[in-house]
Amino acid sequence: MPELDLSLDVVDLTAALVDIASESLHEAEIADAVEQALRALPHLRVERDGHSIVASTSLGRSERVVIAGHLDTVPENGNLPSRLEGDTLWGLGTCDMKGGVAIALKLAAQLTEPVRDITFVFYEAEEIAAVHNGLGRLAREHPEWLAGDFAILMEPSNAGVEAGCQGTMRVDIRTVGERSHSARWWMGSNAIHALAPVLDTLASYAPREVEIDGLVYREGLNAVGISGGVSGNVIPDEAVVTVNFRFAPDRSEDDAFTHLQEVFEGFGLTVTDSAPGALPGLDRPAAADFVEAVGGEVGPKYGWTDVAKFTVLGVPAVNYGPGDPSFAHKADEHVPVEHLRTVHERLTRWLTP
Amino acid sequence: MPELDLSLDVVDLTAALVDIASESLHEAEIADAVEQALRALPHLRVERDGHSIVASTSLGRSERVVIAGHLDTVPENGNLPSRLEGDTLWGLGTCDMKGGVAIALKLAAQLTEPVRDITFVFYEAEEIAAVHNGLGRLAREHPEWLAGDFAILMEPSNAGVEAGCQGTMRVDIRTVGERSHSARWWMGSNAIHALAPVLDTLASYAPREVEIDGLVYREGLNAVGISGGVSGNVIPDEAVVTVNFRFAPDRSEDDAFTHLQEVFEGFGLTVTDSAPGALPGLDRPAAADFVEAVGGEVGPKYGWTDVAKFTVLGVPAVNYGPGDPSFAHKADEHVPVEHLRTVHERLTRWLTP
Repeated sequence: MPELDLSLDVVDLTAALVDIASESLHEAEIADAVEQALRALPHLRVERDGHSIVASTSLGRSERVVIAGHLDTVPENGNLPSRLEGDTLWGLGTCDMKGGVAIALKLAAQLTEPVRDITFVFYEAEEIAAVHNGLGRLAREHPEWLAGDFAILMEPSNAGVEAGCQGTMRVDIRTVGERSHSARWWMGSNAIHALAPVLDTLASYAPREVEIDGLVYREGLNAVGISGGVSGNVIPDEAVVTVNFRFAPDRSEDDAFTHLQEVFEGFGLTVTDSAPGALPGLDRPAAADFVEAVGGEVGPKYGWTDVAKFTVLGVPAVNYGPGDPSFAHKADEHVPVEHLRTVHERLTRWLTP
Repeated sequence: MPELDLSLDVVDLTAALVDIASESLHEAEIADAVEQALRALPHLRVERDGHSIVASTSLGRSERVVIAGHLDTVPENGNLPSRLEGDTLWGLGTCDMKGGVAIALKLAAQLTEPVRDITFVFYEAEEIAAVHNGLGRLAREHPEWLAGDFAILMEPSNAGVEAGCQGTMRVDIRTVGERSHSARWWMGSNAIHALAPVLDTLASYAPREVEIDGLVYREGLNAVGISGGVSGNVIPDEAVVTVNFRFAPDRSEDDAFTHLQEVFEGFGLTVTDSAPGALPGLDRPAAADFVEAVGGEVGPKYGWTDVAKFTVLGVPAVNYGPGDPSFAHKADEHVPVEHLRTVHERLTRWLTP
């Protein structure tokens, strides 16, 4: 098992985390390393469920802040191991979100007497269907582990505060035809050809931009998968395209599905995965305090993040982490060294007497 | 190993062959049964290569006729085992082409002293990419086994003679995009959406109908497979649709490819499989003799069949077999009992003194 040395500089610690590959559903190794490092810290109480780990102080402070990050990444894309070049650390997960995890681990090791009690949450399976999500499981099975007055999710946000998040829904759009020999195609009906209007709709769809609490959200409607075909001689009788709808937090999940039914009228839609958005909630005192302390402008969160899970639990939450989320899931994923240092420093200052 | 009793009625023998499942690349069991049955016949010399079997008489006749059929089927489609209902035998392969194989096996057993020498060919892997085709391998490695003055391929032809065959070509049409997180789709480029014009072209393509030697061929252009997608959160950077072009025998393979390049201008095409058509060749004496002997009207062959392989070897060839080819590869595949009896009877008469 690789060991994590929490006395490393935050950049080196990020690199060390990146170099422990942890594609979703393969988080055992990184979770073991994180757990071992945290158990060596006497000021923390450590719990584990599956490959998700929760470590907390118990100083009797009047406020408790939850600092959370996921341990998994999307599949590798020719971008491992990590590589430091000048002011930039490159590699899978540098941005989404091992930089944030490294900062949280540094805070866990350094802040033995923080001004607020802190609960650190490191969880599995954020990058795949919601049913696997480690934070979702903790919220269902150990909601007391996540109790707090305010939560910071360390998803990449360009080292600025991002509020709210968009919802996400995946639907399968299935067409049905009739098989026949492809030499006598007129005896059958081609289910792949029947997808043509669906792809046309996707290619020409004009997504909404919506302003909420002064923040502009940007929706998106994209095919993320397509399949069909029986064999090279057969007119296919079934084809399916999987569509991912990212929707602004002024739509509920029901609203989002109704919209998809309108957009793809005449086609059969099946929801395979769905998670609600979260309204920015910048009017809540805990959020306003934090924003004032760390400074900077507040922006909207385009992506879906687990702030929505905290919102459901009644815990105000924001995204605040190193890295430009535009590079998440891309071959050229990277994080600026400056982001790592700035976020680490500001959180340290906010939590130190 | 199942045993084949060649003294069975041709309908029962067809049913017995259907009930030995033999999807392409899984022909070992049926080939073993066919080989064993043929080796029991002292008037035949039997050869085997892979799961393809050749059995021939050596009576020193002035003419030799080749009678050929493939042993494989497309994948099952809820249509096994066989089922006899009144005048119809239902099930996978009844039409394409175990009915023809059953007739050939009956002829092999019954015609101990035919008026023409006969070479029976039972081969594997006709229903998949040409590279696997057993008849193709025999033509390359044992061309002497296929020598003859005339060939009858017992593909389904409604118990009438069908001349020539259409060519077939498969191409992959691939689109390339750029990955990004689907929540920030504007940072990437969606390869599945880029397939929209390809599906539009396929859905609206008007295939040619061409008259050659008085026979009307009907072309077809169909998607037979489609795939793309990285994961549910990622804008896909690659998608591919596999297209099958069935072309009339007045086009060469080169002509066919040029046509596809024009139809899908601006897209990258890769040929994955190709087989030429065969012109009807009704002006050849051997073909004319046979047509006169078995009677009936001659029609065009829409599907690609291995008559093209015999054409390449310089052996005039026609399709003549039981079953309506419109039902090949369909869930409701079937063969009329009357076709089995008629074709069996006419070939027996043509080959008996």
